[in-house]
Formats: sequence, C-alpha cells, structure tokens
Amino acid sequence: MLDNPNSDYRILTLADLPAYLAGLPDIAAMLGGGTADWRCEDVADGNLNSVFLVDGPAGGLCVKQALPYVRVAGESWPMDVRRAFFEVSYARRMAPFVGSLAPAIHHFDAAQFIIVMEKLAPHIILRSALIAGAHHPRVPVDVADYIAAASFHTSDLAAPFETKAADQALFAGNIGLQRISVDLVFTDPYVIHERNRVTVPLAGWAAAFRADIDLKEAVTRARLAYLTHAQSLLHGDLHSGSIMVTATETRVIDGEFALIGPSGFDIGNFIAHYVMAWFAKPFHGSGPAETARFRDLLAADILVFWQRFEAQFLAHWRGFAGAADGLPASHFADPVAAARAETMRRSYVADLFRDAVMFMACKIIRRVLGFAQIADFLVIPDEVVRAQAQAAALAFARSVLLHPARYGDIAAVVAAMPRFEGAGLDPAPTRLL
Amino acid sequence: MLDNPNSDYRILTLADLPAYLAGLPDIAAMLGGGTADWRCEDVADGNLNSVFLVDGPAGGLCVKQALPYVRVAGESWPMDVRRAFFEVSYARRMAPFVGSLAPAIHHFDAAQFIIVMEKLAPHIILRSALIAGAHHPRVPVDVADYIAAASFHTSDLAAPFETKAADQALFAGNIGLQRISVDLVFTDPYVIHERNRVTVPLAGWAAAFRADIDLKEAVTRARLAYLTHAQSLLHGDLHSGSIMVTATETRVIDGEFALIGPSGFDIGNFIAHYVMAWFAKPFHGSGPAETARFRDLLAADILVFWQRFEAQFLAHWRGFAGAADGLPASHFADPVAAARAETMRRSYVADLFRDAVMFMACKIIRRVLGFAQIADFLVIPDEVVRAQAQAAALAFARSVLLHPARYGDIAAVVAAMPRFEGAGLDPAPTRLL
Repeated sequence: MLDNPNSDYRILTLADLPAYLAGLPDIAAMLGGGTADWRCEDVADGNLNSVFLVDGPAGGLCVKQALPYVRVAGESWPMDVRRAFFEVSYARRMAPFVGSLAPAIHHFDAAQFIIVMEKLAPHIILRSALIAGAHHPRVPVDVADYIAAASFHTSDLAAPFETKAADQALFAGNIGLQRISVDLVFTDPYVIHERNRVTVPLAGWAAAFRADIDLKEAVTRARLAYLTHAQSLLHGDLHSGSIMVTATETRVIDGEFALIGPSGFDIGNFIAHYVMAWFAKPFHGSGPAETARFRDLLAADILVFWQRFEAQFLAHWRGFAGAADGLPASHFADPVAAARAETMRRSYVADLFRDAVMFMACKIIRRVLGFAQIADFLVIPDEVVRAQAQAAALAFARSVLLHPARYGDIAAVVAAMPRFEGAGLDPAPTRLL
Repeated sequence: MLDNPNSDYRILTLADLPAYLAGLPDIAAMLGGGTADWRCEDVADGNLNSVFLVDGPAGGLCVKQALPYVRVAGESWPMDVRRAFFEVSYARRMAPFVGSLAPAIHHFDAAQFIIVMEKLAPHIILRSALIAGAHHPRVPVDVADYIAAASFHTSDLAAPFETKAADQALFAGNIGLQRISVDLVFTDPYVIHERNRVTVPLAGWAAAFRADIDLKEAVTRARLAYLTHAQSLLHGDLHSGSIMVTATETRVIDGEFALIGPSGFDIGNFIAHYVMAWFAKPFHGSGPAETARFRDLLAADILVFWQRFEAQFLAHWRGFAGAADGLPASHFADPVAAARAETMRRSYVADLFRDAVMFMACKIIRRVLGFAQIADFLVIPDEVVRAQAQAAALAFARSVLLHPARYGDIAAVVAAMPRFEGAGLDPAPTRLL
C-alpha cells in the first residue's frame, strides 16, 4: 500500500516541477502546451508542505508535496511524508459525500508523496478573508454540510461496522500527524515547552493555565475523548486556514491529519477559529462601527453553522434507509419505537455539541499558548494589544472548559463571548467568569 | 501479514494430525518419540474451531484449527479462518502482561490457521466447574489480575498513543468475529431471528424484550460504546467457557474475538457468567444447603473479582512511570495535581464499572434469548424449570439496564440478585423491579 518512503523520495523544487509534470501525460494534457508554456509558482504558506501552482494554456493545477520535516520548523523536526498518502485516502473517502466542497484530486505519486489537484482560483484562504473583514455567508452553511455529511456517513450510524473498521485499519497508520495534535493541542500549552510561542505579556496567563488543575482535568477528558472515541472519520485540522473561499464556493483542503475520532472535534475546531476572529476583530484596523457589524456577522455565522450542522446531520440520519449497526432499524421499526429513535438522534447530536464546545476551547488555547499561532492574532502589531485580545479568548475558553453547563446551546456560547472582552493580562480576576 | 486463506488451506483431521505434527521438528521434539507413540484426541467443544489434544512420551500439546465455518452451525454459516491469526496476535500481545495466566503458544501455521499451544491438563473449563459446584477461589483473583493488566497496559494510560494505534490497525481486521458479537450480543436477542434459540416457555419474555423500547435504547448505548469506545485491547469473549482451571492455576484461552474496545466489556462478560451460574445453581441437583453455600461463594467471587480488579488496575496506574498520552505526567507533577490525578483515576475506574454492569446485562440477555446458549442453563432438563431460572436472570439484566443508578457499586449488584429469583414466566409483574 505504501512505498518505502526512503527509496526514491526526493524533494521537488520549483525548477524540477515542469519536467516532473511533463512525465505525467494526463496531467500535462490538463495544462496544455509544453513545459515552456507553464508558469510555476511556489505558494507554500501552511506549516508542513511544499505547494506549487502551475498554469498552462489549457488550465491550472496545484501540486503539493509532503516534506520529510515540518516546513516552518525546518529539518530539526522530522515528519513522515506518508501523510500525503493519508490526505489522498481521506479525500477519496470524502468525495462521494462532500462533492465540490473539496478540491478534485487528479494524481497521487506514492513514491514522491506528491498530490496533483484542482487549482483553486480565485479562492482565498478563509482566514485571510476573516482578517480582511470580508464576510462569506456561504461558508458556515457549506462547512456545516461538509462536516454533517462526513461525520454521519463515515460513522456506524450509516454503515455496517466493517466500513469504519476498514477506515480504522487504514487511518490508524497516520500517527505522524496525530502526534502533532496530541502534543500541540492537548499537552504542550499546559507545560513549559520550548515549542510554545507565548506572547511575553501573556506569561501570567500561561503560568495560570499550567497551575490550573481543574482546567487540566477538563483537558484530560478532552484528550481521552480524542484518543478513544472512534466515532467517524475526521478531517482533523478543519480550521479557517484549511478552507478556501470565493463569494460562491467553499473548498475544504488539507486533510492530512485525518483520523477516526470524535465527530465533535472538527465541529469545535471550525467554531474556535470564528471565535478567535471575533476576539481579534477590534484590532484589525477597522473603526468601531465596522468592528461591531463584522462581529455580529461572525456571531451569526457561528449560530448558522451549528444550526445547519444539526439540521443536516439529523436529515442524513432520518433519511438513511441502508444497513447500519449503530442504531439497527430492526429495533426501532414500529411507530412508538420510531419516535424513540428520534429522541435518541437528538440526544446523539446533543452529545456532539458538548464535545464540540469542549474541543473548541482546547483549540483556542493551543492557538494562543502553543506552537502554531494564527495570523488573526499575529497581525496585531502591538504585543500588549495582541495579548489582550488573546487573553479574552483564553478567558472564554477557560470558562467553557470549567463550566460546561453554562454553555448548553450555541446561543449561550455566542452570547457569552462579549463578557470576556475585558479579561486583561492578569488571569486572576476573571477566574470565575 | 496474512496468507490468502483460500490458497493451501485444508481442514486437518484426526487421522492427518500425527503426520502434520511430525513435519514440525520443534513440536515433534516436544512430544518426543514418533508418530506411532502419539495419542491424539478430538476434544472440540467450543462453537467455532477444531481442537485436538496430543500426548507423546515427552509431553502433551493442544492443536487448534480455525474452520471456515461456525463449527456448531455447520457450513451454512461461513467464518473467516484468519481469526486464528488474531487469536495468536492477541496472545502474543498479552504475554508480557499476563504471564502464566494464558497458555504458552508454541507454533502458528499462517497458511493452515493452526495454533499449537500448551496442553492444559488437568485443567477443566471453568463453566464445568461452576455447574459441578466445584469452587475455585483463585479464579476471580486471577481473572481480575488478567483483565487489570491487559486493560491498563494496552490503553493510552500506559503507552504513547502510537502503541494502541498499531493494535487498532491490526485488530480492526478481525471483523469476522466482531460481526458475531455485534449481531448475537447486541441485535438478535431483541428481534425475531431464526438463529435465536429461545426456550418455548420464555416466549413471553422474548416478546416483552422485543417490545421494550427503554431496554432497546439502553442496549443501543451499549452497542455504540462497544463500536466506538476504543479504550484497550480486549479478549472479547471472556466468559467461564474461555477459562480453564485447576485448584492452583487459571488460564484464559480463546482470544480470537480480540478487538480494541471498551475495557468494561471483558469485565462485564466475566461477571455475567457468575451471575448466570448463581441463577442456575438451584437446578443443578444439589440440596438447599449446598445450593445456598455455593451461591454465597459465587456472590463472594463476584465481589472479590471486582475489588481485586479495581485495586490492581489502580496499582498498575499509580505505579506507572513510563511515557503515556492518556494522562500526561507533566500535567500532574506537583503534589496538588498528583492528588487530583488520583481522583481522576478513581473516576476512570468508576466509569469502567458502569460500563461493565451495562455489558454484563447485555451478555446475560444474549445467552438466554440468543443463539449461543450456555450449559449452565441447558443442563436443566425440565424446560419450564430451566425457563424459570433464565427468566430470573433476564429480569435482573433488564433491571440493570433500565435502572443503572440502582447498581452503583458491586455490592448493590450482588445484593439485588435474590430479588429476581421468583420472576416467573410472565415478564409483566417484575417490570419495575
């Protein structure tokens, strides 16, 4: 299934790219013309991989290669190139469920760990749009549809258990990137670690989180849920940097963190980045009126996203007529039992919500106190101002983890955000917020 | 890893056995002498496989072959022979943790799916001992030690998550026997199914269970936990028919149902069979005094088993000093945090107990209303008497599933059993017991 990653692997450079693509007749035909006609560009801006865009007379393509180390960290942090295999496996598994909400995969080179896929243009990264204050109302609906379809159809609710077992057997091999998630999301932010990139004025918050045993207990529950709740096939890194948008199109990209895990993880990750965009917004240079307007839109997006997810997930389930082991149709056939099945569906979705809110909070904390910082905050030039925006997000996340009963529905989550705005650089006063 | 099961596979007969063993020099040496000196016996009494015992001048061996169908059902029910590969993989994974509590594996033939292992003599099947009224006080302690070591050391509490991921990748392939568990434990007993072998006088109970939507909701929770809670490597079929005993030794055998699943499953399965032995005891021919004495011992065994499991599991955890992802030591280093870690360990074990009690009830029901009936009840010759014993077990199991809060500790579980003795053949009066 996997070639030995050490055999023929070599890093593809911008200079080598045309010759490489010319060796793939179907791909060359999609570009049209010959190598002299192709314009190639290095556009890597994620943390892990090489990414090139290529344009020819007949069309454009995106070429992505997994590097044997973490690109932003350099060769001192090695990383298994087979993650490209898992990204392609994930994309192929998703395709029937999510259609055009993910880019088309045209070619996978299993020796070089290179993926050739649809070039997304004029799509931009959702994170950039959020920072620029450009609202994309389709995105929460589209991403809700994506996650609802993925998390229903790859679960035991939608298939005989053998289907998920096959996914489990395959994606259990994707340990290189799971190691990143386990360390960077669930462990490092709560200890002193050289990888953590904490803004200096947030030192008090970081120390408070390291000492907060209630918080670490809550995070342990989240980590154990991540490690042991094998509910559905997840994207595993579904944030605003993994979504490309135009006014009319949404594409979820970069599924290399794919794993079988708790369905609430992708949901919470997506919400977390809207929450952080909301906390960062006042410091992105727009005036108070525009800030208020855009924040209202972000808050509405979060509500729309969850409501759409819930409706779509339930619609998939109610409409499902195939064989599945999770809730066997034979047990819930008569009208009374069918009514109870509906109660159980709603209870299942309520569990997903609780998980999602828990993971949302973990995702906020790791983006502020951990290694992989996000541009939403990094573009704020003044370190103290940036830390104040981040502290508000931290205070919110801490409250969510310590007091989950206060966040029993999506309206409560959204309504609570403004209360944490003035949290400030001293973590103590907001302890019980 | 797995040979094509269709290539060279042939069913080994008693007549072929000596020549087969003679072709394995190390095995032949263990027997001593030559084929003419070996005494071979067909002793299959499980549901699935061929089992032979072989004695030679130098020693004895057990030879087990996976048949391409369910032995007790015949060729009409095909079954993947690769289960022998999973049995051996499970045994090898357990060996460092459970030592002599499992038989030694001497040889695995990956083409014929034959396992040659330690012959257990004069061990008898625990179920036979329970039916005969022969008490084995070591068994609950030994099995508790076995499950405690297995469920701790193969979990994320005792290793970096990559270890469980490797187990997951392997055992996710063991779908043939998982299909049996999913169908026979969690589905068939609650529907009309040709495989179900319900005693005629229990027809009322079977109908009541098929119509009981509260019960089916509880069973759905159990089934989803079985399918999605990837906590540790389980034996998967750990009942009194999978344990061989002498007065001084306990051996857990037959790990072919192995899976990554909820740790409470094996615990609940073991308890379930002591509970059923307890309900069956009055009809095994001993007088009232002996019945009372043996039942008291069985009840004590259940208490001892759980208390020993809890103590040993916690001891493994408290004494663990290696790297693990479940509860990272770095988060719980200082004295206050260490005290909290202890609270969390107890909470984890309390969750295992709740799961165990739930699975115990499911296991009782499947042995009464499903396909694989057990000798504890089958040896009761009078069908009505047998049904009354089974009805009491069913009433108890139903109460456990419908009212879990009443069964908050092992003493409550044991203390409740006598209340269901007179349940009778009409399921209605005990509805709210």
